[in-house]
Amino acid sequence: MTALHPQGVFSAALTPITAGHAPDHALFVAHCRRLLAQGCDGIAMLGTTGEANSFTSEERRALLEAVVAAGIAPERLLPGTGVAALSETVALTRHALSLGVSTVVMLPPFYYKGVTEDGLFAAYAEVVERVADPRLRIVLYHIPQMSAVPIPFAVIARLRAAYPGTFTGIKDSAGDLAHMEALVAAFPGLAVLAGADPLMLPLLRAGGAGCITATSNLVAAELAFVFRHHADPGRAAEVEAAQARIIAARNRVSRFAQIASLKLLLADSVGEPGWGRLRPPLLPLTPAEAAALRAD
Amino acid sequence: MTALHPQGVFSAALTPITAGHAPDHALFVAHCRRLLAQGCDGIAMLGTTGEANSFTSEERRALLEAVVAAGIAPERLLPGTGVAALSETVALTRHALSLGVSTVVMLPPFYYKGVTEDGLFAAYAEVVERVADPRLRIVLYHIPQMSAVPIPFAVIARLRAAYPGTFTGIKDSAGDLAHMEALVAAFPGLAVLAGADPLMLPLLRAGGAGCITATSNLVAAELAFVFRHHADPGRAAEVEAAQARIIAARNRVSRFAQIASLKLLLADSVGEPGWGRLRPPLLPLTPAEAAALRAD
Repeated sequence: MTALHPQGVFSAALTPITAGHAPDHALFVAHCRRLLAQGCDGIAMLGTTGEANSFTSEERRALLEAVVAAGIAPERLLPGTGVAALSETVALTRHALSLGVSTVVMLPPFYYKGVTEDGLFAAYAEVVERVADPRLRIVLYHIPQMSAVPIPFAVIARLRAAYPGTFTGIKDSAGDLAHMEALVAAFPGLAVLAGADPLMLPLLRAGGAGCITATSNLVAAELAFVFRHHADPGRAAEVEAAQARIIAARNRVSRFAQIASLKLLLADSVGEPGWGRLRPPLLPLTPAEAAALRAD
Repeated sequence: MTALHPQGVFSAALTPITAGHAPDHALFVAHCRRLLAQGCDGIAMLGTTGEANSFTSEERRALLEAVVAAGIAPERLLPGTGVAALSETVALTRHALSLGVSTVVMLPPFYYKGVTEDGLFAAYAEVVERVADPRLRIVLYHIPQMSAVPIPFAVIARLRAAYPGTFTGIKDSAGDLAHMEALVAAFPGLAVLAGADPLMLPLLRAGGAGCITATSNLVAAELAFVFRHHADPGRAAEVEAAQARIIAARNRVSRFAQIASLKLLLADSVGEPGWGRLRPPLLPLTPAEAAALRAD
Protein backbone atom coordinates (compact mmCIF):
# COMPACT_ATOMS: atom_id res chain seq x y z
CA MET A 1 0.00 0.00 0.00
CA THR A 2 1.36 3.39 -0.98
CA ALA A 3 1.78 5.91 1.83
CA LEU A 4 -0.56 8.85 1.85
CA HIS A 5 0.94 12.10 0.62
CA PRO A 6 1.17 14.53 2.28
CA GLN A 7 1.07 13.02 5.73
CA GLY A 8 1.65 14.64 9.10
CA VAL A 9 1.17 17.96 10.83
CA PHE A 10 1.36 21.00 8.59
CA SER A 11 1.07 24.44 10.06
CA ALA A 12 -1.25 26.88 8.30
CA ALA A 13 1.32 29.50 9.14
CA LEU A 14 0.40 33.05 10.02
CA THR A 15 2.09 35.78 7.98
CA PRO A 16 3.71 38.65 9.89
CA ILE A 17 3.36 42.11 8.38
CA THR A 18 5.86 44.97 8.57
CA ALA A 19 5.03 48.54 9.58
CA GLY A 20 5.23 49.26 5.83
CA HIS A 21 2.34 46.81 5.22
CA ALA A 22 4.40 44.09 3.50
CA PRO A 23 4.93 40.47 4.52
CA ASP A 24 7.82 40.38 7.00
CA HIS A 25 10.28 37.88 5.57
CA ALA A 26 12.64 37.71 8.54
CA LEU A 27 9.93 37.14 11.14
CA PHE A 28 8.27 34.59 8.89
CA VAL A 29 11.44 32.57 8.33
CA ALA A 30 12.05 32.51 12.08
CA HIS A 31 8.49 31.29 12.60
CA CYS A 32 8.88 28.49 10.04
CA ARG A 33 12.07 27.34 11.76
CA ARG A 34 10.31 27.37 15.12
CA LEU A 35 7.36 25.36 13.80
CA LEU A 36 9.62 22.74 12.28
CA ALA A 37 11.67 22.57 15.48
CA GLN A 38 8.45 22.01 17.40
CA GLY A 39 7.73 18.97 15.28
CA CYS A 40 5.70 20.14 12.30
CA ASP A 41 6.23 18.00 9.24
CA GLY A 42 5.89 21.01 7.01
CA ILE A 43 4.57 24.52 6.53
CA ALA A 44 1.34 25.11 4.64
CA MET A 45 2.19 28.77 4.07
CA LEU A 46 0.09 31.29 2.19
CA GLY A 47 -3.28 29.88 3.07
CA THR A 48 -6.37 31.37 4.66
CA THR A 49 -4.71 31.74 8.07
CA GLY A 50 -1.71 33.27 6.30
CA GLU A 51 -3.91 35.98 4.73
CA ALA A 52 -2.52 34.97 1.33
CA ASN A 53 -5.48 36.28 -0.61
CA SER A 54 -4.80 39.72 0.83
CA PHE A 55 -1.38 39.78 -0.86
CA THR A 56 -0.41 40.37 -4.47
CA SER A 57 1.19 37.59 -6.48
CA GLU A 58 4.48 39.46 -6.23
CA GLU A 59 4.24 39.55 -2.44
CA ARG A 60 3.40 35.84 -2.35
CA ARG A 61 6.28 34.90 -4.63
CA ALA A 62 8.76 37.02 -2.68
CA LEU A 63 7.77 35.41 0.62
CA LEU A 64 8.15 31.90 -0.76
CA GLU A 65 11.52 32.79 -2.28
CA ALA A 66 12.70 34.19 1.05
CA VAL A 67 11.80 30.99 2.87
CA VAL A 68 13.59 28.80 0.37
CA ALA A 69 16.59 31.15 0.27
CA ALA A 70 16.79 30.89 4.05
CA GLY A 71 17.46 27.19 3.67
CA ILE A 72 14.11 25.68 4.58
CA ALA A 73 13.70 22.57 2.46
CA PRO A 74 11.15 23.23 -0.30
CA GLU A 75 9.77 19.69 0.04
CA ARG A 76 8.55 20.70 3.50
CA LEU A 77 6.58 23.64 2.09
CA LEU A 78 2.97 23.37 0.93
CA PRO A 79 2.23 26.87 -0.33
CA GLY A 80 -1.25 27.93 -1.32
CA THR A 81 -1.37 28.80 -5.01
CA GLY A 82 -5.10 28.77 -5.82
CA VAL A 83 -6.55 32.22 -6.52
CA ALA A 84 -9.60 33.54 -8.32
CA ALA A 85 -7.83 33.93 -11.69
CA LEU A 86 -6.95 30.70 -13.43
CA SER A 87 -3.92 32.17 -15.21
CA GLU A 88 -2.60 33.48 -11.89
CA THR A 89 -3.03 30.09 -10.25
CA VAL A 90 -0.97 28.64 -13.10
CA ALA A 91 1.76 31.25 -12.65
CA LEU A 92 1.95 30.84 -8.87
CA THR A 93 2.05 27.06 -9.15
CA ARG A 94 4.80 27.12 -11.76
CA HIS A 95 6.77 29.52 -9.61
CA ALA A 96 6.52 27.20 -6.59
CA LEU A 97 7.70 24.24 -8.67
CA SER A 98 10.61 26.31 -9.98
CA LEU A 99 11.81 26.67 -6.38
CA GLY A 100 11.74 22.95 -5.69
CA VAL A 101 8.29 22.79 -4.10
CA SER A 102 6.26 19.84 -5.37
CA THR A 103 3.03 19.98 -3.37
CA VAL A 104 0.71 22.96 -3.38
CA VAL A 105 -2.62 23.58 -1.67
CA MET A 106 -5.14 24.82 -4.21
CA LEU A 107 -8.37 26.66 -3.60
CA PRO A 108 -10.95 26.46 -6.34
CA PRO A 109 -11.44 29.72 -8.26
CA PHE A 110 -13.55 31.51 -5.68
CA TYR A 111 -15.13 34.58 -7.25
CA TYR A 112 -17.97 33.00 -9.22
CA LYS A 113 -20.47 31.15 -7.08
CA GLY A 114 -22.74 28.31 -8.06
CA VAL A 115 -20.34 27.11 -10.74
CA THR A 116 -21.09 23.77 -12.32
CA GLU A 117 -19.16 20.58 -11.62
CA ASP A 118 -17.99 20.70 -15.24
CA GLY A 119 -16.71 24.23 -14.71
CA LEU A 120 -14.89 23.37 -11.50
CA PHE A 121 -13.34 20.30 -13.09
CA ALA A 122 -12.28 22.37 -16.10
CA ALA A 123 -10.66 24.98 -13.88
CA TYR A 124 -8.47 22.45 -12.04
CA ALA A 125 -7.81 20.45 -15.21
CA GLU A 126 -6.68 23.51 -17.10
CA VAL A 127 -4.24 24.39 -14.32
CA VAL A 128 -2.70 20.91 -14.51
CA GLU A 129 -2.55 21.04 -18.31
CA ARG A 130 -0.98 24.47 -18.40
CA VAL A 131 1.50 23.87 -15.60
CA ALA A 132 2.44 20.70 -17.49
CA ASP A 133 4.94 19.42 -14.93
CA PRO A 134 4.86 15.78 -13.81
CA ARG A 135 6.29 16.76 -10.39
CA LEU A 136 3.11 18.64 -9.49
CA ARG A 137 1.13 17.32 -6.50
CA ILE A 138 -2.07 19.12 -5.54
CA VAL A 139 -3.88 19.19 -2.22
CA LEU A 140 -7.43 20.33 -2.93
CA TYR A 141 -8.69 22.94 -0.49
CA HIS A 142 -12.29 22.50 0.64
CA ILE A 143 -13.32 25.48 2.79
CA PRO A 144 -16.85 26.34 1.68
CA GLN A 145 -17.52 28.72 4.57
CA MET A 146 -14.81 31.01 3.16
CA SER A 147 -14.48 30.21 -0.55
CA ALA A 148 -18.23 29.70 -0.93
CA VAL A 149 -17.20 27.15 -3.59
CA PRO A 150 -17.38 23.61 -2.18
CA ILE A 151 -15.51 20.80 -3.94
CA PRO A 152 -17.99 18.00 -4.67
CA PHE A 153 -17.00 14.34 -4.47
CA ALA A 154 -17.82 13.92 -8.16
CA VAL A 155 -15.22 16.53 -9.09
CA ILE A 156 -12.58 14.90 -6.90
CA ALA A 157 -13.28 11.55 -8.54
CA ARG A 158 -13.01 13.00 -12.05
CA LEU A 159 -9.76 14.82 -11.29
CA ARG A 160 -8.15 11.74 -9.73
CA ALA A 161 -9.19 9.64 -12.71
CA ALA A 162 -8.01 12.17 -15.28
CA TYR A 163 -4.68 12.97 -13.58
CA PRO A 164 -3.55 9.90 -11.60
CA GLY A 165 -0.94 10.81 -9.02
CA THR A 166 -1.52 14.55 -9.19
CA PHE A 167 -4.44 15.14 -6.83
CA THR A 168 -2.94 13.41 -3.81
CA GLY A 169 -4.71 15.11 -0.93
CA ILE A 170 -7.48 17.33 0.32
CA LYS A 171 -7.53 19.83 3.13
CA ASP A 172 -11.03 19.70 4.57
CA SER A 173 -11.67 22.89 6.53
CA ALA A 174 -15.44 22.62 6.65
CA GLY A 175 -15.18 21.47 10.26
CA ASP A 176 -17.37 18.39 9.83
CA LEU A 177 -15.68 15.12 10.85
CA ALA A 178 -18.34 13.06 9.05
CA HIS A 179 -17.42 14.76 5.76
CA MET A 180 -13.72 13.98 6.30
CA GLU A 181 -14.52 10.36 7.12
CA ALA A 182 -16.65 10.12 4.00
CA LEU A 183 -13.72 11.40 1.94
CA VAL A 184 -11.44 8.74 3.45
CA ALA A 185 -14.00 6.06 2.65
CA ALA A 186 -14.71 7.29 -0.87
CA PHE A 187 -11.13 7.84 -2.01
CA PRO A 188 -8.61 5.18 -0.93
CA GLY A 189 -5.13 6.64 -1.21
CA LEU A 190 -6.27 10.25 -0.93
CA ALA A 191 -4.58 12.06 1.95
CA VAL A 192 -7.39 13.68 3.91
CA LEU A 193 -6.07 16.45 6.15
CA ALA A 194 -8.17 18.00 8.89
CA GLY A 195 -8.48 21.78 8.73
CA ALA A 196 -9.54 21.97 12.39
CA ASP A 197 -6.98 21.06 15.07
CA PRO A 198 -9.27 19.11 17.43
CA LEU A 199 -10.41 16.89 14.55
CA MET A 200 -6.98 15.59 13.58
CA LEU A 201 -7.02 12.87 16.25
CA PRO A 202 -10.43 11.38 15.37
CA LEU A 203 -9.58 11.72 11.66
CA LEU A 204 -6.29 9.83 12.12
CA ARG A 205 -8.26 7.04 13.82
CA ALA A 206 -10.51 6.94 10.77
CA GLY A 207 -7.59 6.66 8.32
CA GLY A 208 -6.85 10.33 7.71
CA ALA A 209 -3.40 11.67 6.89
CA GLY A 210 -2.95 14.49 9.39
CA CYS A 211 -3.80 18.16 9.48
CA ILE A 212 -3.23 21.60 8.06
CA THR A 213 -4.40 23.84 10.86
CA ALA A 214 -4.25 27.30 12.32
CA THR A 215 -3.87 26.65 16.03
CA SER A 216 -0.65 24.81 15.16
CA ASN A 217 0.92 28.27 15.17
CA LEU A 218 0.65 27.98 18.98
CA VAL A 219 0.45 24.24 19.74
CA ALA A 220 2.60 22.58 17.08
CA ALA A 221 4.38 20.39 19.61
CA GLU A 222 1.10 19.01 20.95
CA LEU A 223 -0.18 18.26 17.45
CA ALA A 224 3.07 16.57 16.50
CA PHE A 225 2.89 14.46 19.66
CA VAL A 226 -0.67 13.39 18.93
CA PHE A 227 0.22 12.57 15.34
CA ARG A 228 3.22 10.42 16.27
CA HIS A 229 1.68 8.56 19.19
CA HIS A 230 -2.06 8.40 18.56
CA ALA A 231 -1.94 4.65 17.87
CA ASP A 232 0.34 3.79 20.77
CA PRO A 233 -1.73 2.33 23.63
CA GLY A 234 1.14 2.95 26.04
CA ARG A 235 0.90 6.69 25.50
CA ALA A 236 -2.85 7.04 25.47
CA ALA A 237 -2.91 9.26 28.55
CA GLU A 238 -0.25 11.58 27.15
CA VAL A 239 -2.06 11.75 23.82
CA GLU A 240 -5.30 12.65 25.56
CA ALA A 241 -3.51 15.32 27.58
CA ALA A 242 -1.99 16.84 24.44
CA GLN A 243 -5.35 16.67 22.71
CA ALA A 244 -6.92 18.51 25.65
CA ARG A 245 -4.34 21.29 25.32
CA ILE A 246 -5.07 21.49 21.57
CA ILE A 247 -8.80 21.79 22.21
CA ALA A 248 -8.24 24.42 24.90
CA ALA A 249 -6.05 26.48 22.57
CA ARG A 250 -8.55 26.22 19.77
CA ASN A 251 -11.40 27.29 22.03
CA ARG A 252 -9.34 30.17 23.33
CA VAL A 253 -8.67 31.61 19.85
CA SER A 254 -12.23 31.05 18.69
CA ARG A 255 -13.80 33.46 21.17
CA PHE A 256 -12.91 36.46 18.99
CA ALA A 257 -11.64 36.67 15.40
CA GLN A 258 -9.36 33.66 15.02
CA ILE A 259 -6.48 35.00 12.92
CA ALA A 260 -6.26 38.19 14.99
CA SER A 261 -6.32 36.13 18.19
CA LEU A 262 -3.57 33.83 16.97
CA LYS A 263 -1.42 36.80 15.95
CA LEU A 264 -1.87 38.50 19.31
CA LEU A 265 -0.92 35.39 21.27
CA LEU A 266 2.04 34.67 19.00
CA ALA A 267 3.22 38.28 19.32
CA ASP A 268 3.07 37.93 23.11
CA SER A 269 4.71 34.52 23.11
CA VAL A 270 7.73 35.45 20.98
CA GLY A 271 7.97 39.06 22.16
CA GLU A 272 7.53 40.53 18.66
CA PRO A 273 4.74 43.11 18.63
CA GLY A 274 5.03 43.22 14.82
CA TRP A 275 3.20 39.89 14.73
CA GLY A 276 0.08 41.75 15.80
CA ARG A 277 -0.54 43.43 12.45
CA LEU A 278 -3.17 42.23 9.96
CA ARG A 279 -4.06 43.42 6.50
CA PRO A 280 -7.59 44.75 5.96
CA PRO A 281 -10.30 43.55 5.69
CA LEU A 282 -8.94 41.71 8.74
CA LEU A 283 -8.09 43.83 11.76
CA PRO A 284 -6.33 43.27 15.08
CA LEU A 285 -8.50 42.62 18.10
CA THR A 286 -9.87 45.68 19.86
CA PRO A 287 -8.07 46.59 23.09
CA ALA A 288 -10.98 45.19 25.09
CA GLU A 289 -10.91 41.91 23.17
CA ALA A 290 -7.15 41.69 23.51
CA ALA A 291 -7.40 42.20 27.27
CA ALA A 292 -10.11 39.55 27.54
CA LEU A 293 -8.11 37.06 25.47
CA ARG A 294 -4.95 37.63 27.51
CA ALA A 295 -6.95 37.15 30.70
CA ASP A 296 -8.30 33.77 29.55
CA MET B 1 -27.74 70.56 -6.82
CA THR B 2 -24.67 68.76 -8.11
CA ALA B 3 -25.20 66.22 -10.88
CA LEU B 4 -24.83 62.60 -9.93
CA HIS B 5 -21.59 60.98 -11.05
CA PRO B 6 -21.46 58.68 -12.89
CA GLN B 7 -24.78 59.02 -14.67
CA GLY B 8 -26.15 57.13 -17.64
CA VAL B 9 -25.97 53.72 -19.24
CA PHE B 10 -22.71 51.84 -18.70
CA SER B 11 -22.18 48.48 -20.27
CA ALA B 12 -20.77 45.73 -18.08
CA ALA B 13 -18.85 44.65 -21.14
CA LEU B 14 -18.14 41.03 -21.92
CA THR B 15 -14.48 40.14 -22.53
CA PRO B 16 -13.67 38.10 -25.65
CA ILE B 17 -10.99 35.44 -25.29
CA THR B 18 -8.53 34.27 -27.93
CA ALA B 19 -7.85 30.66 -28.87
CA GLY B 20 -4.69 31.11 -26.79
CA HIS B 21 -6.83 31.82 -23.70
CA ALA B 22 -5.97 35.53 -23.40
CA PRO B 23 -8.28 38.55 -23.54
CA ASP B 24 -8.77 39.46 -27.20
CA HIS B 25 -7.85 43.12 -27.45
CA ALA B 26 -8.98 43.72 -31.02
CA LEU B 27 -12.43 42.18 -30.59
CA PHE B 28 -12.85 44.02 -27.30
CA VAL B 29 -11.97 47.42 -28.73
CA ALA B 30 -14.44 46.86 -31.56
CA HIS B 31 -17.10 45.94 -29.01
CA CYS B 32 -16.45 49.07 -26.95
CA ARG B 33 -16.80 51.23 -30.08
CA ARG B 34 -20.06 49.47 -30.97
CA LEU B 35 -21.48 49.96 -27.47
CA LEU B 36 -20.64 53.66 -27.49
CA ALA B 37 -22.09 54.04 -30.99
CA GLN B 38 -25.28 52.40 -29.75
CA GLY B 39 -25.61 55.08 -27.10
CA CYS B 40 -23.81 53.83 -24.02
CA ASP B 41 -22.40 56.63 -21.90
CA GLY B 42 -19.45 54.51 -21.00
CA ILE B 43 -17.94 51.07 -20.58
CA ALA B 44 -17.79 49.41 -17.18
CA MET B 45 -15.14 46.97 -18.34
CA LEU B 46 -13.47 44.28 -16.24
CA GLY B 47 -16.42 43.52 -14.01
CA THR B 48 -18.26 40.34 -13.15
CA THR B 49 -19.77 40.03 -16.63
CA GLY B 50 -16.32 40.71 -18.07
CA GLU B 51 -14.84 37.74 -16.14
CA ALA B 52 -12.23 40.13 -14.71
CA ASN B 53 -11.54 38.03 -11.65
CA SER B 54 -10.55 35.16 -13.92
CA PHE B 55 -7.68 37.28 -15.34
CA THR B 56 -4.29 38.16 -13.87
CA SER B 57 -3.49 41.76 -13.05
CA GLU B 58 -1.19 41.83 -16.07
CA GLU B 59 -4.02 40.70 -18.34
CA ARG B 60 -6.34 43.33 -16.86
CA ARG B 61 -3.80 46.11 -17.26
CA ALA B 62 -2.99 45.12 -20.83
CA LEU B 63 -6.66 45.13 -21.83
CA LEU B 64 -7.25 48.58 -20.35
CA GLU B 65 -4.13 49.91 -22.04
CA ALA B 66 -5.28 48.51 -25.38
CA VAL B 67 -8.64 50.27 -25.11
CA VAL B 68 -7.07 53.61 -24.24
CA ALA B 69 -4.42 53.19 -26.93
CA ALA B 70 -7.21 52.57 -29.45
CA GLY B 71 -8.49 56.07 -28.77
CA ILE B 72 -11.47 55.40 -26.54
CA ALA B 73 -11.69 58.29 -24.10
CA PRO B 74 -10.54 57.15 -20.66
CA GLU B 75 -13.20 59.29 -19.00
CA ARG B 76 -15.79 56.97 -20.57
CA LEU B 77 -14.20 53.91 -18.97
CA LEU B 78 -15.19 52.60 -15.54
CA PRO B 79 -12.87 49.64 -15.06
CA GLY B 80 -13.25 47.27 -12.16
CA THR B 81 -10.18 47.40 -9.92
CA GLY B 82 -11.35 45.75 -6.71
CA VAL B 83 -9.80 42.34 -6.07
CA ALA B 84 -9.24 40.14 -3.03
CA ALA B 85 -5.78 41.55 -2.26
CA LEU B 86 -5.71 45.11 -0.97
CA SER B 87 -2.26 45.85 -2.39
CA GLU B 88 -3.40 44.61 -5.81
CA THR B 89 -6.50 46.80 -5.70
CA VAL B 90 -4.19 49.74 -5.00
CA ALA B 91 -1.93 48.84 -7.92
CA LEU B 92 -4.80 48.33 -10.39
CA THR B 93 -6.44 51.59 -9.34
CA ARG B 94 -3.22 53.58 -9.68
CA HIS B 95 -2.67 52.05 -13.09
CA ALA B 96 -6.14 53.08 -14.25
CA LEU B 97 -5.57 56.65 -13.04
CA SER B 98 -2.23 56.72 -14.83
CA LEU B 99 -4.08 56.14 -18.10
CA GLY B 100 -6.49 59.02 -17.56
CA VAL B 101 -9.33 57.02 -16.03
CA SER B 102 -10.84 58.74 -13.01
CA THR B 103 -13.75 56.51 -11.98
CA VAL B 104 -13.33 52.88 -11.03
CA VAL B 105 -15.82 50.27 -9.87
CA MET B 106 -14.53 48.60 -6.72
CA LEU B 107 -15.56 45.28 -5.24
CA PRO B 108 -14.88 44.83 -1.55
CA PRO B 109 -12.07 42.37 -0.78
CA PHE B 110 -14.03 39.18 -1.35
CA TYR B 111 -12.09 36.24 0.05
CA TYR B 112 -12.77 36.61 3.76
CA LYS B 113 -16.45 36.35 4.66
CA GLY B 114 -18.21 37.79 7.65
CA VAL B 115 -15.75 40.66 7.91
CA THR B 116 -16.63 43.45 10.31
CA GLU B 117 -17.83 46.88 9.25
CA ASP B 118 -14.60 48.27 10.69
CA GLY B 119 -12.61 45.87 8.55
CA LEU B 120 -14.52 46.70 5.39
CA PHE B 121 -14.19 50.41 6.05
CA ALA B 122 -10.46 49.97 6.70
CA ALA B 123 -10.00 48.08 3.44
CA TYR B 124 -11.59 50.81 1.30
CA ALA B 125 -9.99 53.59 3.36
CA GLU B 126 -6.54 52.10 2.99
CA VAL B 127 -6.98 51.91 -0.79
CA VAL B 128 -7.86 55.61 -0.91
CA GLU B 129 -4.98 56.53 1.38
CA ARG B 130 -2.44 54.51 -0.55
CA VAL B 131 -3.62 55.55 -4.01
CA ALA B 132 -3.40 59.12 -2.68
CA ASP B 133 -4.73 60.78 -5.82
CA PRO B 134 -7.41 63.49 -5.56
CA ARG B 135 -8.74 62.55 -9.02
CA LEU B 136 -9.93 59.17 -7.78
CA ARG B 137 -13.69 58.52 -7.91
CA ILE B 138 -15.00 55.19 -6.67
CA VAL B 139 -18.23 53.38 -7.51
CA LEU B 140 -18.81 50.83 -4.76
CA TYR B 141 -19.84 47.43 -6.06
CA HIS B 142 -22.57 45.69 -4.06
CA ILE B 143 -23.11 42.18 -5.43
CA PRO B 144 -23.53 39.97 -2.37
CA GLN B 145 -24.75 36.94 -4.33
CA MET B 146 -21.29 36.76 -5.97
CA SER B 147 -18.85 38.53 -3.64
CA ALA B 148 -20.59 37.15 -0.53
CA VAL B 149 -19.45 40.43 1.06
CA PRO B 150 -22.33 42.93 1.17
CA ILE B 151 -21.58 46.63 1.63
CA PRO B 152 -23.64 47.87 4.60
CA PHE B 153 -25.15 51.35 4.67
CA ALA B 154 -23.07 52.19 7.74
CA VAL B 155 -19.86 51.58 5.80
CA ILE B 156 -21.04 53.71 2.88
CA ALA B 157 -21.85 56.54 5.28
CA ARG B 158 -18.46 56.36 6.97
CA LEU B 159 -16.58 56.29 3.67
CA ARG B 160 -18.49 59.27 2.27
CA ALA B 161 -17.88 61.23 5.47
CA ALA B 162 -14.18 60.34 5.62
CA TYR B 163 -13.47 60.95 1.91
CA PRO B 164 -15.91 63.56 0.58
CA GLY B 165 -16.13 63.51 -3.19
CA THR B 166 -14.38 60.13 -3.58
CA PHE B 167 -17.16 57.61 -3.14
CA THR B 168 -19.53 59.04 -5.71
CA GLY B 169 -21.60 56.03 -6.71
CA ILE B 170 -22.68 52.48 -6.06
CA LYS B 171 -23.49 49.69 -8.45
CA ASP B 172 -26.24 47.68 -6.80
CA SER B 173 -26.37 44.23 -8.38
CA ALA B 174 -28.36 42.52 -5.65
CA GLY B 175 -31.44 42.72 -7.89
CA ASP B 176 -33.69 44.26 -5.24
CA LEU B 177 -35.28 47.57 -6.30
CA ALA B 178 -36.25 48.38 -2.71
CA HIS B 179 -32.58 48.25 -1.69
CA MET B 180 -31.63 50.63 -4.53
CA GLU B 181 -34.43 53.02 -3.56
CA ALA B 182 -33.28 52.90 0.04
CA LEU B 183 -29.77 53.85 -1.09
CA VAL B 184 -31.15 56.82 -3.05
CA ALA B 185 -33.10 57.94 0.00
CA ALA B 186 -30.25 57.43 2.46
CA PHE B 187 -27.47 59.06 0.46
CA PRO B 188 -28.43 62.25 -1.41
CA GLY B 189 -25.85 62.91 -4.11
CA LEU B 190 -24.77 59.25 -4.35
CA ALA B 191 -25.17 57.91 -7.89
CA VAL B 192 -27.10 54.65 -7.51
CA LEU B 193 -26.72 52.47 -10.60
CA ALA B 194 -28.91 49.45 -11.22
CA GLY B 195 -27.06 46.21 -11.84
CA ALA B 196 -30.10 44.61 -13.47
CA ASP B 197 -31.30 45.98 -16.81
CA PRO B 198 -35.06 45.87 -16.19
CA LEU B 199 -34.62 47.84 -12.96
CA MET B 200 -32.96 50.89 -14.50
CA LEU B 201 -36.30 52.45 -15.49
CA PRO B 202 -38.00 52.18 -12.09
CA LEU B 203 -34.75 53.25 -10.41
CA LEU B 204 -34.48 56.35 -12.62
CA ARG B 205 -38.03 57.26 -11.59
CA ALA B 206 -36.92 56.95 -7.96
CA GLY B 207 -33.94 59.27 -8.44
CA GLY B 208 -31.30 56.76 -9.51
CA ALA B 209 -28.40 57.60 -11.82
CA GLY B 210 -28.61 54.86 -14.46
CA CYS B 211 -27.21 51.38 -14.81
CA ILE B 212 -24.18 49.17 -15.17
CA THR B 213 -25.62 46.04 -16.68
CA ALA B 214 -24.89 42.88 -18.59
CA THR B 215 -27.73 42.70 -21.08
CA SER B 216 -26.50 46.05 -22.42
CA ASN B 217 -24.05 43.97 -24.42
CA LEU B 218 -27.08 43.14 -26.58
CA VAL B 219 -29.60 45.95 -26.00
CA ALA B 220 -27.50 49.06 -25.44
CA ALA B 221 -29.60 51.14 -27.81
CA GLU B 222 -32.81 50.31 -25.95
CA LEU B 223 -31.24 51.13 -22.58
CA ALA B 224 -29.87 54.41 -23.91
CA PHE B 225 -33.33 55.30 -25.28
CA VAL B 226 -35.01 54.56 -21.96
CA PHE B 227 -32.38 56.56 -20.09
CA ARG B 228 -32.75 59.64 -22.32
CA HIS B 229 -36.54 59.68 -22.63
CA HIS B 230 -37.91 58.07 -19.48
CA ALA B 231 -39.22 61.40 -18.18
CA ASP B 232 -40.71 62.57 -21.50
CA PRO B 233 -44.50 62.01 -21.45
CA GLY B 234 -44.59 62.36 -25.25
CA ARG B 235 -42.43 59.25 -25.66
CA ALA B 236 -43.99 57.08 -23.01
CA ALA B 237 -45.11 54.44 -25.48
CA GLU B 238 -41.69 54.21 -27.10
CA VAL B 239 -40.04 54.01 -23.68
CA GLU B 240 -42.38 51.19 -22.69
CA ALA B 241 -41.65 49.38 -25.93
CA ALA B 242 -37.89 49.68 -25.40
CA GLN B 243 -38.29 48.54 -21.82
CA ALA B 244 -40.24 45.50 -23.01
CA ARG B 245 -37.39 44.59 -25.36
CA ILE B 246 -34.91 44.98 -22.48
CA ILE B 247 -36.98 42.70 -20.27
CA ALA B 248 -37.34 40.14 -23.04
CA ALA B 249 -33.58 40.12 -23.67
CA ARG B 250 -32.86 39.76 -19.98
CA ASN B 251 -35.30 36.88 -19.64
CA ARG B 252 -33.81 35.21 -22.66
CA VAL B 253 -30.26 35.22 -21.30
CA SER B 254 -31.36 34.18 -17.82
CA ARG B 255 -32.68 30.78 -18.88
CA PHE B 256 -29.18 29.28 -18.88
CA ALA B 257 -25.87 30.63 -17.53
CA GLN B 258 -26.02 34.36 -18.20
CA ILE B 259 -22.48 35.22 -19.27
CA ALA B 260 -22.28 32.19 -21.57
CA SER B 261 -25.67 33.07 -23.06
CA LEU B 262 -24.65 36.66 -23.70
CA LYS B 263 -21.41 35.55 -25.34
CA LEU B 264 -23.22 33.08 -27.59
CA LEU B 265 -25.75 35.65 -28.77
CA LEU B 266 -23.07 38.29 -29.28
CA ALA B 267 -20.95 35.82 -31.25
CA ASP B 268 -23.94 35.11 -33.48
CA SER B 269 -24.88 38.74 -33.82
CA VAL B 270 -21.45 40.03 -34.87
CA GLY B 271 -20.39 36.87 -36.70
CA GLU B 272 -17.31 36.29 -34.52
CA PRO B 273 -17.28 32.76 -33.10
CA GLY B 274 -14.34 33.77 -30.90
CA TRP B 275 -16.80 35.62 -28.69
CA GLY B 276 -18.11 32.25 -27.56
CA ARG B 277 -15.11 31.37 -25.38
CA LEU B 278 -15.15 31.65 -21.58
CA ARG B 279 -12.45 31.07 -19.01
CA PRO B 280 -13.04 28.31 -16.45
CA PRO B 281 -14.71 28.02 -14.00
CA LEU B 282 -17.22 29.46 -16.48
CA LEU B 283 -17.95 27.41 -19.57
CA PRO B 284 -19.83 27.92 -22.84
CA LEU B 285 -23.37 26.62 -23.03
CA THR B 286 -23.74 22.97 -23.92
CA PRO B 287 -24.79 22.32 -27.54
CA ALA B 288 -28.32 21.52 -26.36
CA GLU B 289 -28.52 24.74 -24.36
CA ALA B 290 -27.13 26.73 -27.26
CA ALA B 291 -29.72 25.25 -29.61
CA ALA B 292 -32.52 26.02 -27.17
CA LEU B 293 -31.33 29.59 -26.66
CA ARG B 294 -31.04 30.20 -30.40
CA ALA B 295 -34.54 28.80 -30.89
CA ASP B 296 -36.04 31.20 -28.34
